[in-house]
Amino acid sequence: MNKLILSAIFILCCGVAMAQENLWQGAGLTSPEVCEDGSVIFRLYAPNAEEVAVVGDFASGSQPMTKDSYGVWEFRTESLASEYYTYTYIVDGMTGVLDKSNVNTVRDVGSVMNYFIVGGERGDMYRAHDVEHGTVSRVWATTGDLSRRMAIYTPAGYEAGYRSYPVLYLLHGMGGDEEAWIATGRMVEIMDNLIAQGKAEPMIVVMPNGCMRHDAAPSYTGKGEYKPYMSGSMDGSFESYFPAVVSWVDAHYRTYASKESRAIAGLSMGGFHAMQISKAYPDMFDYVGLFSAAIYRGEKGVAMYESLEEGIAEQFRRGLSLYWIGIGADDFLYDENVKFRKMLDSQGHEYEYCESAGGHTWRNWRCYLAEFVTKLF
Amino acid sequence: MNKLILSAIFILCCGVAMAQENLWQGAGLTSPEVCEDGSVIFRLYAPNAEEVAVVGDFASGSQPMTKDSYGVWEFRTESLASEYYTYTYIVDGMTGVLDKSNVNTVRDVGSVMNYFIVGGERGDMYRAHDVEHGTVSRVWATTGDLSRRMAIYTPAGYEAGYRSYPVLYLLHGMGGDEEAWIATGRMVEIMDNLIAQGKAEPMIVVMPNGCMRHDAAPSYTGKGEYKPYMSGSMDGSFESYFPAVVSWVDAHYRTYASKESRAIAGLSMGGFHAMQISKAYPDMFDYVGLFSAAIYRGEKGVAMYESLEEGIAEQFRRGLSLYWIGIGADDFLYDENVKFRKMLDSQGHEYEYCESAGGHTWRNWRCYLAEFVTKLF
Repeated sequence: MNKLILSAIFILCCGVAMAQENLWQGAGLTSPEVCEDGSVIFRLYAPNAEEVAVVGDFASGSQPMTKDSYGVWEFRTESLASEYYTYTYIVDGMTGVLDKSNVNTVRDVGSVMNYFIVGGERGDMYRAHDVEHGTVSRVWATTGDLSRRMAIYTPAGYEAGYRSYPVLYLLHGMGGDEEAWIATGRMVEIMDNLIAQGKAEPMIVVMPNGCMRHDAAPSYTGKGEYKPYMSGSMDGSFESYFPAVVSWVDAHYRTYASKESRAIAGLSMGGFHAMQISKAYPDMFDYVGLFSAAIYRGEKGVAMYESLEEGIAEQFRRGLSLYWIGIGADDFLYDENVKFRKMLDSQGHEYEYCESAGGHTWRNWRCYLAEFVTKLF
Repeated sequence: MNKLILSAIFILCCGVAMAQENLWQGAGLTSPEVCEDGSVIFRLYAPNAEEVAVVGDFASGSQPMTKDSYGVWEFRTESLASEYYTYTYIVDGMTGVLDKSNVNTVRDVGSVMNYFIVGGERGDMYRAHDVEHGTVSRVWATTGDLSRRMAIYTPAGYEAGYRSYPVLYLLHGMGGDEEAWIATGRMVEIMDNLIAQGKAEPMIVVMPNGCMRHDAAPSYTGKGEYKPYMSGSMDGSFESYFPAVVSWVDAHYRTYASKESRAIAGLSMGGFHAMQISKAYPDMFDYVGLFSAAIYRGEKGVAMYESLEEGIAEQFRRGLSLYWIGIGADDFLYDENVKFRKMLDSQGHEYEYCESAGGHTWRNWRCYLAEFVTKLF
């Protein structure tokens, strides 16, 4: 374990040169190490622990690690498929322990995890490459009495040019916020890469906060702390607010402000929102994407949620270019998506359908996004 | 410990309702809890651990915690001064363990930590309030053959208006990157709050990446992974590049493109950069801030680092509105700042000097920033 000796020397040097801030706590170990064959080695220094495991979406269940004589626990996976993966450690029954050798962390709702990428076709799409990059802005949109935080992606070249762009409105799920698609959703890397490859049109992507009880993600709100957990709005309030978002974006960005240049998509609760909003304002969006949508989960007694069939019929009557539905075969919302599709079928409405393996996971939502955006504009 | 029972029920409900993503791992415990008297209670569930401590900048050394019969470790601090604090846990000799009850994490160079704020005068300045908020953008500035990532703050009202703004260029230290001042530096909250209070002029703040070997912070570069640690540039390359940054900003933002509307400041290596850049281009900046500056740490043999006295003399001869120096009495760079001030004194150059308690810490740099920006424009 000569890496640990190197680490000791390194920390000593830093200690002499630049003391007083503890900045290099993970300097010694390499973890995770993605090997050439696609296997991944996790390493954690926990000299006094009795039992350590790694848990993440690279395998089901937790994977027991083994300790060497230096107190470093290690686990090597099988060869993994190309993908973006998240993980944490379990140390003597304490869950959610992060890997301090890995500065790549991500928050998803109330959990903070480490991540890594196994290269190849899919993983490479979720990784930054040396291509032209778009800009990501966190803006506060003031509309009427409300001021709410949004994340906005503008494609490479936006600042330098004068042209206008189409807009995708991209909505998060319950418990999520305006950071979700940028974090675990990898939307910046997906858009940068697909645009650079000529597979997606340059477009603006707008990610509003979809929980009307809050104005921003937990770390950014000025209205007091909250724990994210089950934050969401399925009472019509977000949908009613949405035209103000679109107006704000059209007023402040160089958009094509017309139906044929607008798309809306979302995951889970956000898929429900995309369905309801595009139905409520049938002249607003020409492209609709429902990713693992919580179709029938709206609160009871909300007027705009009633008469679903008639509303959808009117939306299709007015015309749209794409109605896209994606869901995993093991998703707990699978059955209600079957029911919804049957309704669409019975009415003769055309839509595209993508059924993937797996459940209600970011692995699917990233895929759906990467598929959906190639079909826009 | 009925909080744990509640947690069990909560997790059960979530498990039924929205399985398949592990989003609520910290739902049960409240930690840290900032009490009315300014004391803070840390809690960590680690049922099988033998020894747990909390370590952070709220106290020197690690603070041993005690375990209750439910496996929850707890420590309550004395009443703490109003401030932004970072911390991690040490569990059975394993350092850098994060608090999974706290979604507020921050990366500083190679370390990820939790943070919390104790309200009051200083802490409130570092916290988001219900005031008008500026926009934070991460942009890629292409200049010549280089494309490099920068963080840019534009004050509230920028998008809606047509007026131009002065610009502060704000530089990070060794190992840092374009995210540093936004993360532990709390610059967004500081600027939003001071502008809302009328204590600072609305201004644009530009935070470029100051390490020429890299183009972006570790998670965002497309040029391969790296561990941040000692990344920096003190060989003249960043200084030579800097006029291109200023030109890019003036071309793409509504700036007042003149010396009297430009400031430059930085911490540690960034203070060195601010000193060297403002000296090398004496008609570019009217306000200069050196925060714990590494005055005499440039590489040997770099032409622009030579003739320091003469360069500074020429800079002062051309005139400037403010030359501001801040350093902690315990800073390891204290002596070289004394030496530098003696040189300034001997030449009769006027500057403002702020000597604070403490060392080479973000606690000081946040203070310096909050002081410095009230003196600009």
